[in-house]
Parts: sequence; C-alpha cells; structure tokens
Amino acid sequence: MHTAPHMSNDEFRALGHQMVDFIADYWDALEREPGKFRVLSQVRPGGVIESVPGMPPEVGQPLAGRARAEERAGGDLFADIERIVMPGITHWQHPHFYAFFPANATGPSVLAELLSAGLGVQGMLWATGPACTELETRMLDWLGGMIGLPPEFLSTSSNGGGVIQGTASDAVLVAMVAARQRALSAGSGKELVAYTSTQAHSSIIKAAMIAGIADGPEDRVHVRLIDVDGEFRMRPDALEAAVREDVAAGRVPFFVCATVGTTGCTAVDPVADIATVIARSSASEGRVTTWLHIDAAHAGAACVCPEYRHFLKGVERADSVCFNPHKWLLTNFDCNCFWTRDRRAIIDALSITPEYLRNAASDAGAVIDYRDWQVPLGRRFRALKLWFVIRHYGVEGLRAHIRGHMEMAADFERAVRSDARFEVVAPRTMNLVCFRLRALPGQDGAARDAMNKRLMDGLNASGRLYLTHTTLPGTGFTLRMAMGAVRTGPQHVRQAWEWVQEAACCATLPS
Amino acid sequence: MHTAPHMSNDEFRALGHQMVDFIADYWDALEREPGKFRVLSQVRPGGVIESVPGMPPEVGQPLAGRARAEERAGGDLFADIERIVMPGITHWQHPHFYAFFPANATGPSVLAELLSAGLGVQGMLWATGPACTELETRMLDWLGGMIGLPPEFLSTSSNGGGVIQGTASDAVLVAMVAARQRALSAGSGKELVAYTSTQAHSSIIKAAMIAGIADGPEDRVHVRLIDVDGEFRMRPDALEAAVREDVAAGRVPFFVCATVGTTGCTAVDPVADIATVIARSSASEGRVTTWLHIDAAHAGAACVCPEYRHFLKGVERADSVCFNPHKWLLTNFDCNCFWTRDRRAIIDALSITPEYLRNAASDAGAVIDYRDWQVPLGRRFRALKLWFVIRHYGVEGLRAHIRGHMEMAADFERAVRSDARFEVVAPRTMNLVCFRLRALPGQDGAARDAMNKRLMDGLNASGRLYLTHTTLPGTGFTLRMAMGAVRTGPQHVRQAWEWVQEAACCATLPS
Repeated sequence: MHTAPHMSNDEFRALGHQMVDFIADYWDALEREPGKFRVLSQVRPGGVIESVPGMPPEVGQPLAGRARAEERAGGDLFADIERIVMPGITHWQHPHFYAFFPANATGPSVLAELLSAGLGVQGMLWATGPACTELETRMLDWLGGMIGLPPEFLSTSSNGGGVIQGTASDAVLVAMVAARQRALSAGSGKELVAYTSTQAHSSIIKAAMIAGIADGPEDRVHVRLIDVDGEFRMRPDALEAAVREDVAAGRVPFFVCATVGTTGCTAVDPVADIATVIARSSASEGRVTTWLHIDAAHAGAACVCPEYRHFLKGVERADSVCFNPHKWLLTNFDCNCFWTRDRRAIIDALSITPEYLRNAASDAGAVIDYRDWQVPLGRRFRALKLWFVIRHYGVEGLRAHIRGHMEMAADFERAVRSDARFEVVAPRTMNLVCFRLRALPGQDGAARDAMNKRLMDGLNASGRLYLTHTTLPGTGFTLRMAMGAVRTGPQHVRQAWEWVQEAACCATLPS
Repeated sequence: MHTAPHMSNDEFRALGHQMVDFIADYWDALEREPGKFRVLSQVRPGGVIESVPGMPPEVGQPLAGRARAEERAGGDLFADIERIVMPGITHWQHPHFYAFFPANATGPSVLAELLSAGLGVQGMLWATGPACTELETRMLDWLGGMIGLPPEFLSTSSNGGGVIQGTASDAVLVAMVAARQRALSAGSGKELVAYTSTQAHSSIIKAAMIAGIADGPEDRVHVRLIDVDGEFRMRPDALEAAVREDVAAGRVPFFVCATVGTTGCTAVDPVADIATVIARSSASEGRVTTWLHIDAAHAGAACVCPEYRHFLKGVERADSVCFNPHKWLLTNFDCNCFWTRDRRAIIDALSITPEYLRNAASDAGAVIDYRDWQVPLGRRFRALKLWFVIRHYGVEGLRAHIRGHMEMAADFERAVRSDARFEVVAPRTMNLVCFRLRALPGQDGAARDAMNKRLMDGLNASGRLYLTHTTLPGTGFTLRMAMGAVRTGPQHVRQAWEWVQEAACCATLPS
C-alpha cells in the first residue's frame, strides 16, 4: 500500500510557530526599521523566477525551520523565503505604502485566515458547513448595521441579505447578471445597457464584457460612461438623458452602478439623485425598474462612523451594495461584503441544483446555500475573519481606525496647500489626496505631466514610499496619496511629505 | 489624533502559537479519536446563528487565549470557537469523509496560506508583487510538467501559460469568455452554442448563464448536453451530430467542455476523439476552431502518476485545461490551476487598463499581469501553497498519495462486489466507487432508490462517516464513496465498509 509522506502534526506545530514568528518579526521590522525595506520592490523582471529551479524536486525535502538551517546543505524553507520571495515583495503592509487603496492584513484577520485554512471547511451548501454559512449571515447583518444599511438588506429581517464575495469585481458581476435576469424575465427587450460614470472602476466594464453585455472594453453603446461634474461625481441629468436616448432607440437600461469613493479621487456619486432618475424614468416608461448597484469598495468602510454615513445617502433605494473590508477595514484579502434587497433575483440568476448537491436541509428551504449567491461553487470560511476583527476592535475601535486616517489625510492636504509649488487637484472626501506640482512658468500641460511623472518615479524608485497616479477629466497626470495602511501614523505622513518636497526639487529640474 | 487599538505583534505571536496548536490538536483528534466527531454536522438550521449575539460589540475584547480563559467573565476566543463554531463544522478533514470530492488541507499548504496572509501582498500586477507573479508562473510550469502537459501550455516555452484561479467554475468562465471573444473577433455569427456532456459539472451551465450564452439553466439550445455512452463518457458521434445540426441552423459552435473525471462517477471523456470531431467539423465548415476546454477538476491530480496520464490523452489538442490541487493534491482551498495555449485570447477577453493601473513594467510588455487572466482584479499569493506542498512531498510523495487512494478504492470496490446484496453501478476509473443495494425481490426502481436513500441518510445521521449520492443515466439513486481525504487510510475504508454493511440490514427493512 502506498502512503504519502505527510507532515506530522508535531512538525506542523513547530513550523507553524516559526511561521507565526516569521510574520511577527516581519511586522516588527516594518514598524521599527521601515527604512530597511524598499516599499515598491526593485527586483527586475525575471529576477525571482530564475532563482527557483526549473524542475520540481522528485523527492520531498523536510521544510526545516530556521533553527535547523545550519545542519543542512541548503533548501531551508525560511532561508529560501528570505532569498527568493522577500526581494520580490512590494510591501503592502509598510507604513509608507500610499498606492492604490490599502489592503490591510491585521493580526485578528490573519489568525482567522489560519483557522479557516486549518479547519478546511467547504461552505458551498449549508449542510457542508453550517457554521460557515450561519456565522457569515450574522456577520453580514452586523456589518450591514454598522455601516447604516436599512433592514431590507439584512438576512434576519427581510428578503434580502448579505454574502461574502471574493472582490468587488465578483460582486458587480453577480449584481449585473441578477439585473439581467430580472429584466429579461420581465419580458424586456434584449439589447441591454449598463451605466456608470467615467470615473467608475474598470471592473464594471470588465463585468459587462464577461456577462456578454459589452462587446469589448470600448463598447460605449452597451456600457455608457456618464459624465461627471466638477467634483468628479456622476451627473444625474446626464444619466437621465442617456437613459432617455436609449429607451427611444429601443434599448433597455437594466443596470446602473453608482460609485461611492471612486478609485481615481474618492468622489462620491449622488446615490439618492441617481435613484430618483431611475425611478422616474422606469415608471414613466412602464418597464421593470433598472437595478441600482452601489460600488463602495473602498469608502464603505468609512460608514462605520456616523459622520461619514452620508456617503451612502440613498442606499435604501439601491438593489445592491458592496464594500471591501479587505481594503480599509483591517481584514486581510479576500473579503468583499455584498448585500442585496432581493436575494431571489440573485438566486434565480445563479442557481442550478444537480443531483449530487441535493440534500434535505436545502430541499426544505430552511437554510441559505451561498453557492447560489456567487460565481464559484466552493467557498472558504471567511466569516471568521470578520468575526475576529470585529470582536478584537469593537465598533469603536474600527471608528478610531477610520478617523485616524481621515485626520492624516487632512494634515497631508493642509501641507500640500501650504506649499505654493503644489496644488490639490480634486476635493478631498476621505483618506486620499490627489495633488501635483503646478506647471512651472512657460511649461505646457504635457511638460507639467512629465515633471509630475518624474516626481512619482523618483519617489517610488527610492523605495522609501510607494504612491500611484491617475488622470482625472481635464486635469492630466495626478499623484494619489492614499493613507490607509495599518501601520501608517501621522509621523509617517509628515515624513512622506518631506520626501515629496525634497524630490520635487529634482523633479522640477529639466529632464 | 485617533488611534485604533491594534493587536500588538507580541499578542499576535502568542495567539498565533495558540491557533497553530488549536489546529494541530484538532488534526491530532481527527486521527486519534475520529469517533469523537460527527463527520456531517448534526446542528439544526439556526443552531449556530442564535449562539452569536445579534449586535456587534461596541468595545473590542482582547482575543485572549485558552490559558487566560478562567480570568475572564466570558468571550474567550478559543472557548467561543469550541462552543459556537465546532458543533457547526462538517469535518472535511476527517478520515471518514467520503462525500463529494476531497478538499484537502495539509500542513505545508496551511503554512503557506498563513504566510500569504501575513505578507498581505496583492498580485494583481507584476509590479505590485513580482514574487507573487513569478513564483506562480514557475509553479504552474512545474505542475504542468508534472501532469504531462505539452510545452505549448507552459509560460516559459510558449504563447500559453498557467495561472491560479479560485475554482474550476472561475476557470471555465474564463475559458468560455475567451472562446467567445475568439469566435466573435473572427467574425462569426452571434448565436453561440456550448457543448458538454450530460455528466458535466453544473459550473459549465452556470458559466454559460453568467456569460449570457444561456438564457437560463434549462436553455438546451445554447448549452447542449451531449449523450454519454454506457460508461458515462461523452459520445463523440453525438457531439458531431449536434454540431452539424447547429451549423445548419446558423448557430456557431464556439465551445466544448470535455470532462476528465465527472462529478457523478469520474468518467473520462475521450478528449482525443472529441478534438478530432472539433477539428474535422471546424475545417469542413471553414470557421474558426471551436475552443476545447478540459475540466479535470478532480482527476487532473492523478496525472502526476505516469500510469494515469492517459486520462488526459489528447490534451495537446485542447485550448485550455484545469484541475484543482485543492481537491486531491494536498493544497488547501482555493487553488485551481488553469493552463491555456493561447494567453492572448484570455487577455483580449479580459484586459482593461485604466490609468491608475498603468506602470512601466506592464507598459514595456516584459511581465505578466495576472489580473488580465481572471475575473477579479485582486489576488492572493497562492503560489506559495503549491511551492510548499511540492517541496515537502516531492513529485514521488504526491504520486504515493494518489496511488494510496487508488488502492483503497480498489479494495472498497472488491468488497462491494463480494457482497451479493450490493452492486457497483459505474466503472471505477479512479478513487470513487459508485454503488448501491440491489433491488430486493419484488421491489421496483422507486422502492430500491428509497431504500438506498435510507441507507445513506442513516449512515450520515450516525455521524460516523459522510458520503453523498448522485443519479446516473438509467441507474437511479446511487451512493458515491470518494476516497481522498488526507487522513483516510485502508483501515478507515475497511471500517466504513463494515458500517455500510451494518446499515444495509436496517435499510433493507421495509420503511
């Protein structure tokens, strides 16, 4: 009889302790010696792959820990992590990570990820993991309440409910196919149109491509990108005009995605006004109501603070809404929370029950099978992450976390405004500051953009910090400084601003 | 300035050690006292959710470990895991888990999942995690070679390459949208048809629903389920007839999914013959070649053994193929490995580059950005799991693992065949035995099915083991016994067979 050389539980115990220590040491170092790391990895393309053998080992190697490294000819796991992996890491958990949006990994969430992996439960059906399903239902109700969602979105009080998706990309795809199903089953025409603003995330267009709504990334007939106002928010009047035009042409406006906290500059679309446009035009045309999805991927986290709930004003009129605790709410990737008021629409669009998945609990309709709320069949026990995080921080702790970053961003904005060489390019709504160097005398827009790109590239190449850029309508190249990493404190933001000022001296020299 | 009450690194260290021990203790108990657990959770619907408070805590609670439980009024994390979570766990890692297909969590893979969570890297772009991207490329080349894929599917030698998807459902969706893109950009007609067998996984139809190919789960015009032969394999002649019929009606056969190891009974579709049908009909009709995807979700793992490579015979003529190391190859969920010979088709179907994702490395075309190979944007560092697993086991160790389960399944099949009350219902191709009680004298098919359902329900309600059922064309209710859990040894399978025999006595009594 063949037997596999499994790792003994005692070996797992020993290596597990070492791995926990490795991570804690890494986090310690990020805090105590941030200058030791280059935030944006400076490895060259191919630099990692060539350090891994081209062929797998025929015979297994014990994953010996650091303590035993000396005894061995080579191949120690932790030594190889240091040698092969770490130089190729862009340090998302570094206090000077200001790029994109944050992707926070905290102690409580990592502990939960570990437990989820160790239990190895599949939550595709209620029966295959009742705790996985029911804890998720409870956590989504907790979190929905915490960000001020009305009862229509909570599982225990409505026909709606929440579910953990992998990412906001998955969430908008699910919302879109549910919206299509609802429109088509109401007997609408088949040429469907989705709407979002010019500032929406690329995942909206990508979802439309996957769903077969859009013929490609440039198909502006079936995914209309609505103009924004001076503060980069979707213009409800422009939406209304677009909808009217499409209806006149025989097309069916089936889906609107409003963004609360755009990727470019965290603009907040006027959800309530958008809902009014949708209701008015749907009613006057006597057609099924267009599905309104809110993509609050980044900004939803802020709504745990009552003073930021206004970001979601009008949410009670939406069909679905999502945000990512894996961005700014201290829960490691992946964990997108998605709520709908109409779970039936989701299930109608995604449910298939082959014989091998039938079971008594599901057949009785007494339970939720989350497989019918998502693209994949299998699912991890991710609710543990929310449970651990919310227990550890408490609602007040999460609010303090958000408020701290808001204060840092306000400080950074003040600093930018106090230096005449710079300008703030978009209204600051939360923890992101969009800024750039003003054009030098005689510089045109292209030269100014090139100068700002030199500024960013110089900063990133220094490895001291990492920030990214965007372009906004009518503005050209803009730097984005997102303050949201777990370890980022006011002292880091002040230090970063000094580095930006320093680098500005070089960047303003002719290239 | 607001500051969040983060967990200190030392607290993480202490709790992390405890969590590792909790998992090792759990695994120890599964091995030493399997009878302590009920494999299929016997909690009633609502039993878990009502033990979690309805409202989140306003103030955080330290996640104190077990050692400190006595000092506290309540709320100890580990005590709550025992009290709330564990009764609602269906034990996928139990040696007597024979349901569905296995979902293995092993020491090496859990260690890697922990490291991935601790590093908290986003691998959406090469630049945001070079090691994440390049280790993944290398691991997919390793694994592709290990299961005998030809060089056309490997990144370092072709225009193809591999990528980690979440699940086989995600993989088939990606393949399908790439196939659509290829067909439409070749100027084909717009009414597309996908083909798979009646025994294919529900995810194929689900992908077609999401992609907008199928109008619903019952749309047999746009997703044709091809008949199977007596061994439940897709019939190439039936496929050819269906394709011909559709072409004559002006429809476009754009996608065929062959299954290697069906969910019901691990039948293996004749990939080479299917490829021949596709090539012949595509050529004779002068149209773009239909995309051939191979769903080897479960069975692909077996191909690490040369003696089982024949399962994938003909793969060199497929456009894409995937399998799940998270099923039978000792890597915890999620980890689907997907290879294509035509990475351009995938990227054409899924790529959008907004300004905020542009960067020098990507613009230069020198690197892979895996976001363009998948539905979501964000991605975890899952390649670590494959790296740790392959290093620990080595290719030979993985082969031994597969061979051990094959031997257990052969033993179980022999046992079933030696008991005249039972019959084997489908040819055993690998580690799954489909069997049932024969009809008693005078029993019709419905009565026999009810008897077999009683047998299964009784076994599962005992909590001693967990197995599931299916129906196959012309066979009625069939029990499925899948041997693939990490801890399952020959002694467990023999024990399980005794329990089945025992339970058969009760089940054969009139209900």
